[in-house]
Amino acid sequence: MSSELIERVQASAKKIPADVVIKNGKVVNVFTRKIMETDIAIKNGMIVGLGSYDGQQVIDAQGKYIVPGLIEAHVHIESSLLPPHEFAKVLLLHGVTTAITDPHEIANIAGVTGLEYMIADAKATPMNLFTMLPSCVPVTPFETNGATLNADALAPFMQETEVLGLAEVMNYQAVANTEQDIMEKIAAIQKAGGVIDGHAAGINAEDLTVYPATQIRTDHEAVTVKEAQERLDLGMYLMIREGTVAKDLTALLPVVTEKTARRCVFVTDDTLIDDLLEKGSIDHILRLAIKQGLDPLLAIQMATLNAAECFHLNTLGAIAPGYQADFFFTDDLTTLPIHEVFVKGQLVKTKEALVNELFPKASENKLLTELPKMNATPLDKKSFELKLTGEQGKIIEIIPNRLLTKELIAPITRENGCFVPSTIDDFLKIAVVERHKHTGNIGLGIVKGFELKAGALATSISHDSHNIVVVGTNDEDMLFAVNRLLEIGGGMIAVNNQEELACLPLAIGGIMSTLGYQTTYQRLVTLTKESRKLGASPDFDPFLTLSFLTLSVIPELKITDMGLFSFSEFALTDINHN
Amino acid sequence: MSSELIERVQASAKKIPADVVIKNGKVVNVFTRKIMETDIAIKNGMIVGLGSYDGQQVIDAQGKYIVPGLIEAHVHIESSLLPPHEFAKVLLLHGVTTAITDPHEIANIAGVTGLEYMIADAKATPMNLFTMLPSCVPVTPFETNGATLNADALAPFMQETEVLGLAEVMNYQAVANTEQDIMEKIAAIQKAGGVIDGHAAGINAEDLTVYPATQIRTDHEAVTVKEAQERLDLGMYLMIREGTVAKDLTALLPVVTEKTARRCVFVTDDTLIDDLLEKGSIDHILRLAIKQGLDPLLAIQMATLNAAECFHLNTLGAIAPGYQADFFFTDDLTTLPIHEVFVKGQLVKTKEALVNELFPKASENKLLTELPKMNATPLDKKSFELKLTGEQGKIIEIIPNRLLTKELIAPITRENGCFVPSTIDDFLKIAVVERHKHTGNIGLGIVKGFELKAGALATSISHDSHNIVVVGTNDEDMLFAVNRLLEIGGGMIAVNNQEELACLPLAIGGIMSTLGYQTTYQRLVTLTKESRKLGASPDFDPFLTLSFLTLSVIPELKITDMGLFSFSEFALTDINHN
Repeated sequence: MSSELIERVQASAKKIPADVVIKNGKVVNVFTRKIMETDIAIKNGMIVGLGSYDGQQVIDAQGKYIVPGLIEAHVHIESSLLPPHEFAKVLLLHGVTTAITDPHEIANIAGVTGLEYMIADAKATPMNLFTMLPSCVPVTPFETNGATLNADALAPFMQETEVLGLAEVMNYQAVANTEQDIMEKIAAIQKAGGVIDGHAAGINAEDLTVYPATQIRTDHEAVTVKEAQERLDLGMYLMIREGTVAKDLTALLPVVTEKTARRCVFVTDDTLIDDLLEKGSIDHILRLAIKQGLDPLLAIQMATLNAAECFHLNTLGAIAPGYQADFFFTDDLTTLPIHEVFVKGQLVKTKEALVNELFPKASENKLLTELPKMNATPLDKKSFELKLTGEQGKIIEIIPNRLLTKELIAPITRENGCFVPSTIDDFLKIAVVERHKHTGNIGLGIVKGFELKAGALATSISHDSHNIVVVGTNDEDMLFAVNRLLEIGGGMIAVNNQEELACLPLAIGGIMSTLGYQTTYQRLVTLTKESRKLGASPDFDPFLTLSFLTLSVIPELKITDMGLFSFSEFALTDINHN
Repeated sequence: MSSELIERVQASAKKIPADVVIKNGKVVNVFTRKIMETDIAIKNGMIVGLGSYDGQQVIDAQGKYIVPGLIEAHVHIESSLLPPHEFAKVLLLHGVTTAITDPHEIANIAGVTGLEYMIADAKATPMNLFTMLPSCVPVTPFETNGATLNADALAPFMQETEVLGLAEVMNYQAVANTEQDIMEKIAAIQKAGGVIDGHAAGINAEDLTVYPATQIRTDHEAVTVKEAQERLDLGMYLMIREGTVAKDLTALLPVVTEKTARRCVFVTDDTLIDDLLEKGSIDHILRLAIKQGLDPLLAIQMATLNAAECFHLNTLGAIAPGYQADFFFTDDLTTLPIHEVFVKGQLVKTKEALVNELFPKASENKLLTELPKMNATPLDKKSFELKLTGEQGKIIEIIPNRLLTKELIAPITRENGCFVPSTIDDFLKIAVVERHKHTGNIGLGIVKGFELKAGALATSISHDSHNIVVVGTNDEDMLFAVNRLLEIGGGMIAVNNQEELACLPLAIGGIMSTLGYQTTYQRLVTLTKESRKLGASPDFDPFLTLSFLTLSVIPELKITDMGLFSFSEFALTDINHN
């Protein structure tokens, strides 16, 4: 029998002193949605008493509110550009003490090794980082990725305490058609008692019923009141998303009422480091929701108890005996400034700053060296020759701040039968360079919307396979950019006249930075600034947009290392318009 | 991989027909607390679709409401006088499709064999009967019971799908003092991921904190608004109880609000067959609550989804895809008449009656013969001689319809140094005859309140050890009653002039009937009528009261096979008042 349990009971019964007692706070009770003036007694990282207690350490909350640590219910850590141990710092700065993560990006690059790296890195942080196992790796057969994860590869991970289930099931048709691979994964996770997240973009109520029938119980892709209501009606948890790209809070908030709130939680899904630092994480969503009229205590309940219940986390999400001592201090429940933050009863952030010694260094993760590098041969000047047979081509047209693109048919300029970019028409060249398996694949296309007047931009982040994607006004700068990224093991780069203007190395699998969150943030700001100097549209983030032009599961025209992809044809397509 | 899962998905996606489709119903959605007009499609016992479906069997709900099957969150089946397979019939008649049971009574008689019998019997019924493992067997060292259940005896049961955790932890002091036996049980259940029920009668907030600190997360002993609120504040589920003996609904209902309801569920705890048949089970509580102003949909949510969540039953408590097809039809959400009842998509009750062929017969349970019989030697006329040394004695005084008794000190009549009952003073003789281990123990005492003018009443139900307890106006009738019960293996009996007036045999461990629920009910009615003819007070149930006079954990003066027990002294006590 655990001596920790015995000690907790003894501390609760006041037979031994608590480790830590928080006094003089106004505790937010998410069970009853009221404020309680009470001590919080903590022993071995767990809350053991509310009432009046003595402890070895007494902390004066100075009349502040004490709020349960917030829970991020669905996030891809990699999208922040940070590895878990740096991501944890940023979330703890914002009072988020628990996150349910889906390492879908690294899994597409590094498979099982990627999962092991993320889980090990997550464990070393002082926050509660849980993992959902990526369900769709690779996502499609129309691109080259780094790994395949089948049910047999995933099953052993369910033994890990920090693994909660199966991450966003995106391939609706595979489920509806009971395809073997996805059904095996679902069956394995169900057998292990795990939770299964959905991803049901655009699926209507009639079709959606297949998901809950398969025990897929969440969705974060509802974007209208109707869709949100349909998900709730079918017994699914509604994950209300507000991230860097997708911002659904304002549209969905009308759905949240006294009757529905308990089945609603908040997620960011994908949030870049700049948004995380400048605005926040789940705390930012709470501020927005409260500003739009949601009751603060209801909003907090959604971001704590509800999320914990959704993932069967029975000792998280509340301030009560038997719950982990995760909470933060604030002096205003409306603007929610994040003062002191505690995890397992330990102060991880003072009012001003992180308690640095609690956080591991990147170098401590031994799996880091086992992650794959850029497995591609440097390109030459012929690599980007785009031959066209006719006068008109299919052009990817960007819709600012949407994952959707349009397919534009237009006349283009050719020289020697090859496409020549036009800064006047804003018809630039785009290329996707395979980087996992030395296939030599280079997908070539034309894109409108970036508005670059010179140079090239490249990134080794490109959803979901993370090959290198580059856009440019000329082949030479594109070549320089890609070869530089191959040389440094991946990253984001802005180039002009074959010179590097700015660069953010992403040495961890080509998608995450080893530079720490502050330097990473500064480099990203510089990159954006330099891109804008090259003419990049001020209406959207050029690198983020670039990295989603490869996402073939979203309409209409996309590009992979295998070439142009038409969503409506659901097949690779010829760039020539006949 | 399970072919059932594949078929469910196929039926959900309309690629194969559903087994059963319910059409033309008004479905109560407990996630959103609204009424939906939709088909319910069922495959392999699970709901696979809401919307428009075709099925091999189509059932017309004729515009009735369809309500999720009710959940009884804490009940001792034995208190109904029925074994599980008959209890299930009665609950299904009332739309209760799931019950979380605590076989505490049979465990005190038959230990592990008793648990095995109950679990096997429960499995053979068409309803969902779950078991919580009795935590306190025996309850006290001040009486002789039939078995001891330690952590090692309980642990193997956690492998059973139908076993959910540890039943009502009653011994608060044992927990607060971290006594080894109870802490081992709690640790074992926690390790297995089980739920732990509390039983915190009269424990105030300051002391109660020990329970949730130990992951004891429910309590059904709150009887005031203050106590109820304290339990909710501490993160415990409030089980609102309304049974045959304890009726707390009216007192606690003011606590139920939009903010607190999700942590509130309903329980009966102990309900006799007569109340079950005449009033109902959880359905009766719903009717009372709704009559007192609780919103019907909120009340239904409490009795379904909330209870399921409390016990981590993720596929019960709602009508939605991925949930078990348990529900009933009704034409009025206020008076809640129970029409058709379905479990796992199967009709188990028509509007009028049970579908009898679905229910097993008692004789099918092979473990029945392994349960202990009456292990005591027939008594003789000296057995009940109660010697008194002084003129005054300590008398157990009944408080009608309370488990509490008073200790009355009064002069009594003696002959040859022995107590002589007085029907004028209403000082009757009471005896508890040990029946488990042939100890020959007979506890003797004096009781006031029954008002018998002649004869004797005896029962082999006596909490919690279930020795035979008998009250009478004369030794001869008492002797006849006890010897008759020993002869028939236990039961309840009314005797006058050494003749049996009425008898209900309880051949299953001496506490449950093999006669079927209807005969059992009729016999009980007759027994009560015959008891009243002997003079028994019309203010309370004489047998029920008799069976609780042995419950030594409740104040003030009680009696066990070892003798009189004083709660305030928490020890056996001399009947002579010095």
